[in-house]
Amino acid sequence: RHHRIAAIPGDGIGKEVMPEALRTLEAAQRRFGFRLDVTPIAWASCDYHAQHGQMMPDDWKAQLQGQDAILFGAVGWPATVPDHVSLWGSLLKFRREFDQYINLRPVRLFEGVPCPLAGRKAGDIDYVVVRENTEGEYTNLGGVMYPGTEREIVIQETVMSRFGADRVLRYAYELARSRPRRHLTVATKSNGIAISMPWWDGRADAVGADFPEVTVDKQHIDILSARFVMQPGRFDVVVASNLFGDILSDLGPATTGTIGLAPSANLNPERRFPSLFEPVHGSAPDIYGRNIANPVAMVWSAALMLDFLGEREAHDAIVRAIEQVLREGPHTPDLGGQATTTSLGEALAQRVAG
Amino acid sequence: RHHRIAAIPGDGIGKEVMPEALRTLEAAQRRFGFRLDVTPIAWASCDYHAQHGQMMPDDWKAQLQGQDAILFGAVGWPATVPDHVSLWGSLLKFRREFDQYINLRPVRLFEGVPCPLAGRKAGDIDYVVVRENTEGEYTNLGGVMYPGTEREIVIQETVMSRFGADRVLRYAYELARSRPRRHLTVATKSNGIAISMPWWDGRADAVGADFPEVTVDKQHIDILSARFVMQPGRFDVVVASNLFGDILSDLGPATTGTIGLAPSANLNPERRFPSLFEPVHGSAPDIYGRNIANPVAMVWSAALMLDFLGEREAHDAIVRAIEQVLREGPHTPDLGGQATTTSLGEALAQRVAG
Ligand SMILES: CC(C)[C@H](C(=O)O)[C@@H](O)C(=O)O
Ligand SMILES: CC(C)[C@H](C(=O)O)[C@@H](O)C(=O)O
Repeated sequence: RHHRIAAIPGDGIGKEVMPEALRTLEAAQRRFGFRLDVTPIAWASCDYHAQHGQMMPDDWKAQLQGQDAILFGAVGWPATVPDHVSLWGSLLKFRREFDQYINLRPVRLFEGVPCPLAGRKAGDIDYVVVRENTEGEYTNLGGVMYPGTEREIVIQETVMSRFGADRVLRYAYELARSRPRRHLTVATKSNGIAISMPWWDGRADAVGADFPEVTVDKQHIDILSARFVMQPGRFDVVVASNLFGDILSDLGPATTGTIGLAPSANLNPERRFPSLFEPVHGSAPDIYGRNIANPVAMVWSAALMLDFLGEREAHDAIVRAIEQVLREGPHTPDLGGQATTTSLGEALAQRVAG
Repeated sequence: RHHRIAAIPGDGIGKEVMPEALRTLEAAQRRFGFRLDVTPIAWASCDYHAQHGQMMPDDWKAQLQGQDAILFGAVGWPATVPDHVSLWGSLLKFRREFDQYINLRPVRLFEGVPCPLAGRKAGDIDYVVVRENTEGEYTNLGGVMYPGTEREIVIQETVMSRFGADRVLRYAYELARSRPRRHLTVATKSNGIAISMPWWDGRADAVGADFPEVTVDKQHIDILSARFVMQPGRFDVVVASNLFGDILSDLGPATTGTIGLAPSANLNPERRFPSLFEPVHGSAPDIYGRNIANPVAMVWSAALMLDFLGEREAHDAIVRAIEQVLREGPHTPDLGGQATTTSLGEALAQRVAG
C-alpha cells in the first residue's frame, strides 16, 4: 500500500512536533509494510507569509490536490501575522475548499495523565466529538449598520443547509452504530436559538430514521457542557454544529487533562479532496524553540491519518505506544517530566517499531 | 424600608422551593427590620396555561409593573406544554419586555458540596458570570428557504447593538472594579464568527477605556470553557453574549458541583422595570411532589434579590446561612442526606433569624 501525504509543520511548535510524527510514521511503515510518500511544505506565518505576504501560494490547491492527506502542525504567529489572517488564510481555507466537512476529535482519559476531574480513571471517559466543519455559525456574512455611531447595529448570519447538516449527522450516526454502545448525543439550543436549532433537531430526527439501532438524546449546549464535567462517562458519539463542536471539542479534552495531547481530523470522507490531520494545541509561541513541546497530539493525529487511509493496524499500534509512554514515561515538562520533544518522539517510534 | 415583590412559583419543584424562600425572607425581615409586600401569583404551565391556553394573562405587564422585584420558581412542564411555548411565554418574555439586560450568576465552591474537580477547596473558585440577556444569538429572525426539499437552506440571525453591548460591558467593568481582584474576562469567538465577534471585542476595548483600573483578557469561548475546568481560580468577572453566557453559566456551576444550587438574577439595573430572581435548576418534573428538592438555589436567589433591593446585610446573612447548612447539614438527597425541602428551608430560616 502506498499513500501520498503533504507535511506542513506551520508555525511555532508545529515545527518541533512534526519531525516526531514523521519519525513514528517511518517506524510504522517498516513494521506494517505500507509506504508513505511525504512532501514537506513550508507554508506558515514565519516563512512563506514573511516572504510573500500571504499564507500560501495562489496555486496551493493544485499543489495539494494529488495528496491523499495533509499532516498539519499548527498555525498562528500573532507577533507578525494577525490570527484572522493566518487562520482564514490556511486552516479554515483547507477545511472549506477541500470540503473537510467532518471535524473529529476523540476524547479519552489515559493512565498517567492527571485528570482535572475527581475520581475518574482510564477507561471512564471515551467518546468522540463529531463537529460540522464547513458552515453554520462560522461565516463572514452580515454587517454593521450605522458603524461608529450610537445607533450601531450588527447582524451576523448563521447558515445551515440540509446538504451540510444531513451529511455530518449521517456520519455521526454511522460512527455511533459502529461502536459498542451505539449512542449518539445531538447538541442543540432549540429553546433559545429559534430558527436554525429547531430545524437542526428536525434533521437529526429525519436522518436518525435510518438508524434504529442507535439510541439518541438531544441536549441543549448549556446543560451538555455541564454534563461533560458531571457525567462524562455517559457520552459515546456527540454531534454538533460548527460552533458547538468547537466548544465541546476543547472542553472534552480539558476534562481529561489532554488539551495538550488532543488530535483532530478534518475529513472529506469521500476522498474527493485530501483530509487534514492536526494537533489541537496550536503553535504555542511561548514555549517554541526549547524542544519541550509534547509531540503526542501530533503523533496521535498521524495515527488518525493512518486509520483514515486504511492502515488500521498501524493506527492501533501508535495509539498503544502513546498509552504506554503516557503511563510509563518519559514525560515532557507539561506532564511533570524532563524529557525533550525529540526523546519522547524517539520513545514513541521505538515502541511502534515493536 | 419597604419593598413590593411578586412571588411566582411556576412549575414543578418551583412550587416546593418557593415557600422556603418566603420563609427565609420572613426571618430576614424580622431580623433586619425591612418589610416585603409579597403578592403570590399562580402563572404556570399546570395552572394558568391549563385553564387559559396561555402562560400569563394579557395584562401581565400591568399587573407586575408596580413590583420592585419578581421572585420566580421555575418554568417548564413538557408533559402538557412544549418548552418553547412555556419559555417564550414567560421567562424569556420577562427578560425582554422588562428589559432585564443583565443575567448574573455567581459561581462559588462551598465546603460540604462535593466538587467534580480534583483538589479544589472552598475559596478556590469564586467568580461571577455576567450574561447579556436581551439580544445576540437568541432571536427568531431568519428563515428557511426551499423548506422540505433537498435544497433547504436556513438562515439564523444574531443581532447585537452598541446600545445592548455597551451597557452589559459597562456593568461588567463596574462589577469588576468593585471587587478586590478587579479582573474582567471577555468571552469572544472573533477568530471564527467573523462579523459580530470582532465587533464585540472592539466594544469591550472602547468601554474599557473608562476603566483603567480593571485588567482585561479576551478569551475565545472554546479555550475559555476549557479553562473553567483547568484553571477556575483565575476568573473574577466574566462577561459574555447571550449564548456564550448561557453556556458558561451552566458550565461554571457544574465545575463546583452546584448546578442544583445556583441562583440567577435577571436585572434591569435602572429599576425602570422589575428585576427577576430565579434558581437555575428548572422545574425538575422527575422529582416533583416528593418534598426532596433542594431549596438552596431558590433561597440564594432571594438573597440576590435583597442585595439588589439594597438589603445588603440581609443578603449576607442568608449567604452565611447557606454556607453553614451546606457545611453542617441537614442535607437533601442530592447532597447525600435525607432532609426534606421543608426541613432544609426551616434550617436556613432559623440561621437567618440569628
Ligand atoms: C431555558 C432557556 C431558554 C434558558 C436560556 O438559555 O436562557 C435557560 O437555559 C437559562 O439559562 O435561563
Ligand atoms: C482557530 C480557530 C478558528 C479554530 C476553530 O474555532 O475552528 C480552532 O479553535 C479549532 O477548533 O480548530
